[in-house]
Amino acid sequence: MSKEKDKVTKKISKIWGGRFYKNASKMMNNFNASIKFDKRLCFQDLELNKAHSSMLADKKIITSNENKKIQKGLKLIENEIKNDKFTFSNQLEDIHMHIEARLTELIGDAGKKIHTARSRNDQVATAFKMFVKEQLIEVEILLKQLQGSLIKQASLHVQTIMPGFTHLQIAQPITLGHHLLAYVEMFGRDRERTLDALKRLNKSPLGAAALAGTSFPIDRVKTSQKLGFSGPMENSIDAVSDRDFVFDALSLASIIMVHLSRISEELILWSSPGFGFVELPETYSTGSSIMPQKRNPDAAELIRGKTGRVAGAFLNVLTMMKGLPLAYSKDMQEDKEAFFDAYDNLVNCLMIAEGLIRELKFRPESMKKMLGLDYATATDLADYLVRECNIPFREAHSITGKIVKFAKKKNLSLEKLKLDELLSIDKRINNSVFKVLSVENSLKSKKSFGGTSPVLVKRALSKAKKKWLS
Amino acid sequence: MSKEKDKVTKKISKIWGGRFYKNASKMMNNFNASIKFDKRLCFQDLELNKAHSSMLADKKIITSNENKKIQKGLKLIENEIKNDKFTFSNQLEDIHMHIEARLTELIGDAGKKIHTARSRNDQVATAFKMFVKEQLIEVEILLKQLQGSLIKQASLHVQTIMPGFTHLQIAQPITLGHHLLAYVEMFGRDRERTLDALKRLNKSPLGAAALAGTSFPIDRVKTSQKLGFSGPMENSIDAVSDRDFVFDALSLASIIMVHLSRISEELILWSSPGFGFVELPETYSTGSSIMPQKRNPDAAELIRGKTGRVAGAFLNVLTMMKGLPLAYSKDMQEDKEAFFDAYDNLVNCLMIAEGLIRELKFRPESMKKMLGLDYATATDLADYLVRECNIPFREAHSITGKIVKFAKKKNLSLEKLKLDELLSIDKRINNSVFKVLSVENSLKSKKSFGGTSPVLVKRALSKAKKKWLS
Amino acid sequence: MSKEKDKVTKKISKIWGGRFYKNASKMMNNFNASIKFDKRLCFQDLELNKAHSSMLADKKIITSNENKKIQKGLKLIENEIKNDKFTFSNQLEDIHMHIEARLTELIGDAGKKIHTARSRNDQVATAFKMFVKEQLIEVEILLKQLQGSLIKQASLHVQTIMPGFTHLQIAQPITLGHHLLAYVEMFGRDRERTLDALKRLNKSPLGAAALAGTSFPIDRVKTSQKLGFSGPMENSIDAVSDRDFVFDALSLASIIMVHLSRISEELILWSSPGFGFVELPETYSTGSSIMPQKRNPDAAELIRGKTGRVAGAFLNVLTMMKGLPLAYSKDMQEDKEAFFDAYDNLVNCLMIAEGLIRELKFRPESMKKMLGLDYATATDLADYLVRECNIPFREAHSITGKIVKFAKKKNLSLEKLKLDELLSIDKRINNSVFKVLSVENSLKSKKSFGGTSPVLVKRALSKAKKKWLS
Amino acid sequence: MSKEKDKVTKKISKIWGGRFYKNASKMMNNFNASIKFDKRLCFQDLELNKAHSSMLADKKIITSNENKKIQKGLKLIENEIKNDKFTFSNQLEDIHMHIEARLTELIGDAGKKIHTARSRNDQVATAFKMFVKEQLIEVEILLKQLQGSLIKQASLHVQTIMPGFTHLQIAQPITLGHHLLAYVEMFGRDRERTLDALKRLNKSPLGAAALAGTSFPIDRVKTSQKLGFSGPMENSIDAVSDRDFVFDALSLASIIMVHLSRISEELILWSSPGFGFVELPETYSTGSSIMPQKRNPDAAELIRGKTGRVAGAFLNVLTMMKGLPLAYSKDMQEDKEAFFDAYDNLVNCLMIAEGLIRELKFRPESMKKMLGLDYATATDLADYLVRECNIPFREAHSITGKIVKFAKKKNLSLEKLKLDELLSIDKRINNSVFKVLSVENSLKSKKSFGGTSPVLVKRALSKAKKKWLS
Repeated sequence: MSKEKDKVTKKISKIWGGRFYKNASKMMNNFNASIKFDKRLCFQDLELNKAHSSMLADKKIITSNENKKIQKGLKLIENEIKNDKFTFSNQLEDIHMHIEARLTELIGDAGKKIHTARSRNDQVATAFKMFVKEQLIEVEILLKQLQGSLIKQASLHVQTIMPGFTHLQIAQPITLGHHLLAYVEMFGRDRERTLDALKRLNKSPLGAAALAGTSFPIDRVKTSQKLGFSGPMENSIDAVSDRDFVFDALSLASIIMVHLSRISEELILWSSPGFGFVELPETYSTGSSIMPQKRNPDAAELIRGKTGRVAGAFLNVLTMMKGLPLAYSKDMQEDKEAFFDAYDNLVNCLMIAEGLIRELKFRPESMKKMLGLDYATATDLADYLVRECNIPFREAHSITGKIVKFAKKKNLSLEKLKLDELLSIDKRINNSVFKVLSVENSLKSKKSFGGTSPVLVKRALSKAKKKWLS
Repeated sequence: MSKEKDKVTKKISKIWGGRFYKNASKMMNNFNASIKFDKRLCFQDLELNKAHSSMLADKKIITSNENKKIQKGLKLIENEIKNDKFTFSNQLEDIHMHIEARLTELIGDAGKKIHTARSRNDQVATAFKMFVKEQLIEVEILLKQLQGSLIKQASLHVQTIMPGFTHLQIAQPITLGHHLLAYVEMFGRDRERTLDALKRLNKSPLGAAALAGTSFPIDRVKTSQKLGFSGPMENSIDAVSDRDFVFDALSLASIIMVHLSRISEELILWSSPGFGFVELPETYSTGSSIMPQKRNPDAAELIRGKTGRVAGAFLNVLTMMKGLPLAYSKDMQEDKEAFFDAYDNLVNCLMIAEGLIRELKFRPESMKKMLGLDYATATDLADYLVRECNIPFREAHSITGKIVKFAKKKNLSLEKLKLDELLSIDKRINNSVFKVLSVENSLKSKKSFGGTSPVLVKRALSKAKKKWLS
Repeated sequence: MSKEKDKVTKKISKIWGGRFYKNASKMMNNFNASIKFDKRLCFQDLELNKAHSSMLADKKIITSNENKKIQKGLKLIENEIKNDKFTFSNQLEDIHMHIEARLTELIGDAGKKIHTARSRNDQVATAFKMFVKEQLIEVEILLKQLQGSLIKQASLHVQTIMPGFTHLQIAQPITLGHHLLAYVEMFGRDRERTLDALKRLNKSPLGAAALAGTSFPIDRVKTSQKLGFSGPMENSIDAVSDRDFVFDALSLASIIMVHLSRISEELILWSSPGFGFVELPETYSTGSSIMPQKRNPDAAELIRGKTGRVAGAFLNVLTMMKGLPLAYSKDMQEDKEAFFDAYDNLVNCLMIAEGLIRELKFRPESMKKMLGLDYATATDLADYLVRECNIPFREAHSITGKIVKFAKKKNLSLEKLKLDELLSIDKRINNSVFKVLSVENSLKSKKSFGGTSPVLVKRALSKAKKKWLS
Repeated sequence: MSKEKDKVTKKISKIWGGRFYKNASKMMNNFNASIKFDKRLCFQDLELNKAHSSMLADKKIITSNENKKIQKGLKLIENEIKNDKFTFSNQLEDIHMHIEARLTELIGDAGKKIHTARSRNDQVATAFKMFVKEQLIEVEILLKQLQGSLIKQASLHVQTIMPGFTHLQIAQPITLGHHLLAYVEMFGRDRERTLDALKRLNKSPLGAAALAGTSFPIDRVKTSQKLGFSGPMENSIDAVSDRDFVFDALSLASIIMVHLSRISEELILWSSPGFGFVELPETYSTGSSIMPQKRNPDAAELIRGKTGRVAGAFLNVLTMMKGLPLAYSKDMQEDKEAFFDAYDNLVNCLMIAEGLIRELKFRPESMKKMLGLDYATATDLADYLVRECNIPFREAHSITGKIVKFAKKKNLSLEKLKLDELLSIDKRINNSVFKVLSVENSLKSKKSFGGTSPVLVKRALSKAKKKWLS
């Protein structure tokens, strides 16, 4: 150990000398500055500046002429940013200072007035909220697209028989279409969750100033509406202290990721040689130069692997906000990187999942083959005994167990048993039993609301299309 | 180390012999059984059984007579439980088996029919969902009570001046009432979050059976409505695989706890000798026999200290569900203890917080005294320079900085400076400046929507009362 | 919704009236009291009291006679607790107050002296540390037992061929024994982690008093040694503020749980019908009355499902300690329940895993059958081309790809190809190639240190036995 | 809402058309590629390649001439990277492919041989482990520097009296030096934790190949030692499946961050106007143009605010690894970004904390003043009653309570009370009591090992210097 330690020590010491004592303030600048990540809020900040300046002019806090200059300057800056001609530097801490400083450079004294009747506290909260809002809308749209892919696949597999699992053991036959619609429901709830979050974040902090409000006669209703909010936040201290919108966004992102991780797990299982239920699309898996027959489910694994990352971001922000006194504390600067990282990954995962699912090729024969290995209609037999032979449920179960044991010993499927053999186990059975022993009839019989009978799955599909895709 | 290790080894070995090889199945029984915690679902399971049995009779799946016996049996069990006469045992794994087994004991064969057309998978999901729902309703009510305490305190302190902090440094004067109303907003959002979660969980899994639905002609709409749901879940596989309702409940609980941790932190700070802003009620703090003047903020500390516990429960369930293939897996049994622990603590924290806040005695004189230490109206001076002297914002800031420095050197508050002295720093200042330099005038001037001006705080208070307490 | 809400409101209101206003202090007592969980520290506290009292007598702080009385009283209490005759009550907050109060009841005035020269702060930290230490020792022993089960199974399967997976796709043949030894390494690191934690916690807080030390001439070295510590903690403020030992314990518990979750996942997969690699022991799985052939991997699922619970406990305590000023804060009371819950579950999981693994019955034929489905020796072919035919690695890969494609088209395994056919793809191949194409030869060839060749696995097994089990 | 939604929809749709259907494979490439972050492993990969190639030549697997070419090529690449002339592209997935591809470009066929007898699985694990190791060494060194700053400050304040807090209430007088040494202990444990992690990770995965080992006669001992490891990992499957070294690194990072968050919290409190115990250095705080007297504790707040971020990374990786079957899965690619982000932040926080603490200016007068507000020597009085007047501890407490109450009513400090007054409360008190009532004497009396008496603090300081800084 000691040799490497010496090496590293030397390396650090060099940094030390330079970085620490002489350039402490530069080091601190870098530590403190948020420009490296909050420049992503540039367009939100520009919009905000435009709305704020117009309102200041309307309320005669600045002149109409000053406002014109400001609007023009902001447009120039917008173009500079779009054309990659805007200069970023850690000296100017954050995106808001960058834009204000450049504005003053471009238009002179009028630029120094843009910060009238506001503070960085309400400005940051507003611009970030606008960004989060846009991302939530994007996620809602991506969820819809993902539902679209699932519904399309489900519509191809309304009748496709596959084993339904509990405990990863075969429980009952279901249809693949029915299984895929379960995910449509999950992502449907995620969309509702996203819309709820959007509804809740839709109030603007702008005008709360540092924390107390301002003595200028501003119009918060106007700016909030111009920026697409339904109105201003009620309490100025809450406005600058609150990060609930980040909590909501990260909490729902964590839940979406768990849903994605479940379908990813299934695709990984289903494409593994023990199952062989599905062939992964080339685009969303990785081949091996040496084993061309093999395809690694990289996309599904990466999506599954990112679940903890998004949950970690939620936890990060919860821990950060825990125990913070009102109003703004610098700790809260940590909200942005957590959000950006989580949502960049979430958006990617949703896009990749959409394409991956759209292009899956299922192998119904493998699914059916695995069902043959097991006695998946045993429950149907028990239900038959209850329904047709009036045997109490628990007793029916025990008779069924005996029949399955018998069939297994003879190495026969249930439908291949003879009536005599069945009668030798229980006298009350009659010929109609054979109607429930086949996998197909089992499926057809599951006609309770939400059940797997193909007729119902078809109906559920129409309903889902109408509810989620129109 | 080795001596203790020997001691423990001996202890373990004794357990080993007994516990491991001989009683492995008993050990496994205990590990597997959920009865030790899911007995809390007993009343939900009884209700569920009643509704299920009535529906079975309505649909002629059982006879009306059987149903009567079942209803009677269930009532007997209910009484046994209420009178502590019901026997629990790890042999019968969970509460659902307990009730069914006891029913059969009490009423004979009819009892064996209660499990017709359902499975433990949909039964567990339904009973637990009913429980979660009730807890969410309780939390919403407790949040309202907490808002009530805050609003009551706020109404006593509409005019009470206190320092408003950012970075735990004094920023501007605010009123205590205004500060407390910020929390009313937070807990208001929490109530909305709770109502959203309630809306989203309001569909019943009952009738999904193991995962595929059932061949019995059941009526899921009827049972769902009888149990207070708005209808049945759409997809039977989703119905038994889904734990989104637990995610929603734990996510919102985590957010509430963060809000509670912030007000707790403030009460701990405010009751510490450096602040002295508040006297904690005797009931909610702990005295010292030796220092009767001292009161430890135990209630606030415990609330703050439980934040991570609730967040940990959310994380627990997220991690548990991550990557689970559909449909039910035994892992999901872990959802209940996580929820129970989180909500028991959340409910306690909300009740304690309500009482603690209701009985606080604030010390306005200490608040005002601390304001005197600082130059909290500096921003008002800068705004004055902008508003009245037409000085651009950034320039006004720099002039204000000079004035504060000057005052500090003279050890005077801003309002004690003379006009001459001010003019020596900037000629554009005039006599009207003195209107903005006092803390009282600063407060009054903050008349932007949501601001701290006592007039607005009074108005906000009425609005809050109407919105949240009626 | 509204009807249920009314119902719950009524229920709460009833509680309200009673619980809130009248019994606030009782409610707070219950919230504050730790006796409901810290009574588990009773034996640690008794030991601590004995050691402290003896030292006080040695140092003449109390008389030898008082010490005798105290020792006798403590023994009486020990018996009362062991015989379930000790009364617990929320009135007396914690276990330490219970024991002290009972001591005074039993022996009179001498009991009032036991708390001389210490405080609850150092007492709690010490008793809890003793408890954590014992649990760590237990976990280390359980890990060893678990390694024992794995090594025993590995020794039965040194030669058992199974597919080695990456991405859950078949990569190369390995032996089951080799695979199981990978887990022996993991749990070996966990044992080292546990020993490191034990080493680090092995200093006693006792004598730090409230935070500053004491003016009594106590002997901290003596008490620390009597309690099995290597010595006293260096700094009295650190001694009462520190919960690093809980961090260490929960962090290593989280890592162990992840290891357990991986082997659990494999057992769930391997016992699923797609794999069929293993038969789960009856004791550690659950049968179905209706499908006797089926066995649900409940034990493995529950272990996997508890991973997040333990990680959640670590997170809980990290969040709780975050930002706490020195020295003791009441928040820290939350450390105990988190630890108890995590370690109760960890200990159970380790015991269950040990038994589960010990009694597994593997099915080598299923493992070998799955290997036949794939071209698992393709890498061997490529390595052969490099080694024997001097073809650069990347080129060898591409040739191998062609051969596998060819074989797949012909639906043949690699060893069934003819030399002619191979030569038609690359001239440099010769007859010796057939030595590397069989699964058995592939295995044998992996003789690099740590490789899967049965010879090496046998050697690794001896080494593991010696290193971990002696 | 709907207007913005439309806007965003339009934006997304544009992306959709282009990004999804046409460029799906590009999108997937970006999702899959790790080069954007794993290029940080370039120097580790180069070192690894050098060692591997030399070993291959030593073992005659490649020729000595080929090795020479490879070594030369690797040096060229090293220079290209150092001079920013190396081209990175998502097409070549990761840093390992980049280096290998460039090597072949530079030196031809010999380059194609570098990947002989290894796989990306062992290569990634090894290079990453080397990187983690270096970072752990750096952290250990930074912890030492931080201890250095604390010890330096402590040495200036051996005698500085300050209030010791529990529950953020004043408990007893302590010295500032004593308080700071508590942190030296915490960071000392962190150093030990880091060294333990270094010890545990010090085995090389290289040579495990894909998972099974290799048929080439490689020398794993040699490469492992060349790369600074103590030897090769024992089991090839474990070698590529294991990420325990990341767990260890992130767990200890989380614990360090909690320690840093505690001292940050104290600095934030101490620099707030209610305390005024410390003046923050200009470099590590942010002034306000408008309130020059104010300094925001930005550095301390940011450090505190990053605690959850690092804990989130640990949780992320735990969740990611949970339930992964052996051996390598693509999910594991997520380990790197989590680690990089956590350690970049940890290293920054340690550096900033070191400088911040080094340059603090404490204000002893404010500390002493706050002590005067309270009855911090009450415990000393109680101990006196026990020690000198032979009053049992619990009784002494109650007498002290009466005296404090009396003094408070008279608004006097304890030392200002007259003997008469004391005697009126308890007859057993005598004149010697006044020796224990002053803060100075209280401090002096705390002579138990580890206590706050200045004599002991001085001794502890020497010990700490010797133990931690030499």
